[in-house]
Amino acid sequence: MDKKKDISMAVIKRLPKYYRHLAELLRNDVDRVSSKELSEKIGFTASQIRQDFNCFGGFGQQGYGYNVKELYNEISHILGLDKKYSTVIIGAGNIGQALANYSRFDKFGFDLKAIFDVNPKLIGMRIKDVEITDLDQMESFLAENKVDIGIICVPQAQAQKVADLLVDNGVKGIWNFAPLDIQVPENVSIENVHLSESLLTLVYLMNDLDK
Amino acid sequence: MDKKKDISMAVIKRLPKYYRHLAELLRNDVDRVSSKELSEKIGFTASQIRQDFNCFGGFGQQGYGYNVKELYNEISHILGLDKKYSTVIIGAGNIGQALANYSRFDKFGFDLKAIFDVNPKLIGMRIKDVEITDLDQMESFLAENKVDIGIICVPQAQAQKVADLLVDNGVKGIWNFAPLDIQVPENVSIENVHLSESLLTLVYLMNDLDK
Repeated sequence: MDKKKDISMAVIKRLPKYYRHLAELLRNDVDRVSSKELSEKIGFTASQIRQDFNCFGGFGQQGYGYNVKELYNEISHILGLDKKYSTVIIGAGNIGQALANYSRFDKFGFDLKAIFDVNPKLIGMRIKDVEITDLDQMESFLAENKVDIGIICVPQAQAQKVADLLVDNGVKGIWNFAPLDIQVPENVSIENVHLSESLLTLVYLMNDLDK
Repeated sequence: MDKKKDISMAVIKRLPKYYRHLAELLRNDVDRVSSKELSEKIGFTASQIRQDFNCFGGFGQQGYGYNVKELYNEISHILGLDKKYSTVIIGAGNIGQALANYSRFDKFGFDLKAIFDVNPKLIGMRIKDVEITDLDQMESFLAENKVDIGIICVPQAQAQKVADLLVDNGVKGIWNFAPLDIQVPENVSIENVHLSESLLTLVYLMNDLDK
């Protein structure tokens, strides 16, 4: 199935949700699922779901529902999860360490190659099998090792400099946890996890309900 | 300034960004800022910014820019950050511990009251000043202490049960890190941080650029 061009960001953001729910159906040995059943599970309307899948050429036969395994494989392929990705974490503070320890990502095929920090107290420590290395050595590490994704967990003031270093050394994906809108060139992809913004949104919503 | 009703979710999601950038301007002793200058910093168009602020009744005088301190205070008030919020963390694994250690939240006025877990190895440990307590005791804790926000960091299979317990005991805000779409009643607010979905979106975007 060929992917159509210009898929909207809204559809793209829904794909990981489909992937997660289909993985769960697979684990529960469900063979077939209708858009209506998926709708009940995921919370999007059945028509939304059919429309989304049509963006990618459609996966189902009207009235027969979707083959769960096929759909899972297709979405996995569309997301690019049939490939492996090597990652490095920069910043071994609370969030950096938590992500290094988070085994869920291994399962998706993400391979943590290195962790960098500037703190002498952290350098030399191991998280799982990966040693925390001096950030000074990142550039030479990137020259010798192909790294797909840089996970930025440094403080705000250092984040752009770290991103520039990653980009200048061929890293094409940035997963940013620093509370900053990092600038990257057009051939580099970025996803931000702005925890504070999420928490502040929650507080707004709580106060809004309270009125 | 009175808040208008029916502010769109898109505007709400931009408020924390304004708040962050204004805090930075304040730290740098900037007194006034125009929508054009804000636009260059934040990346939204100047017209978007003026439109957003108009949702809340407008803050500036045409041609004079905004008073940074006033604007910061107003947005702080709109977000509800002029109040304090008590929180509990449920699940003291990697993410739960990282959040408990994350001092950024203290500054916003979030006060971590308790951390709960089921793991006997973790119970009794302290993170900063807060002891990890047996999850069995959460219900009685919530009966005796007003808690505004429950931060869910438990595995997927336990997340809904934990959310139900929080909601049944009067917690009005859920910040959910479990990879699950938790169901809450309409009088409860929820914000999800789905880390895996963010990472999978990044991978999709990288592959999309690669074509």
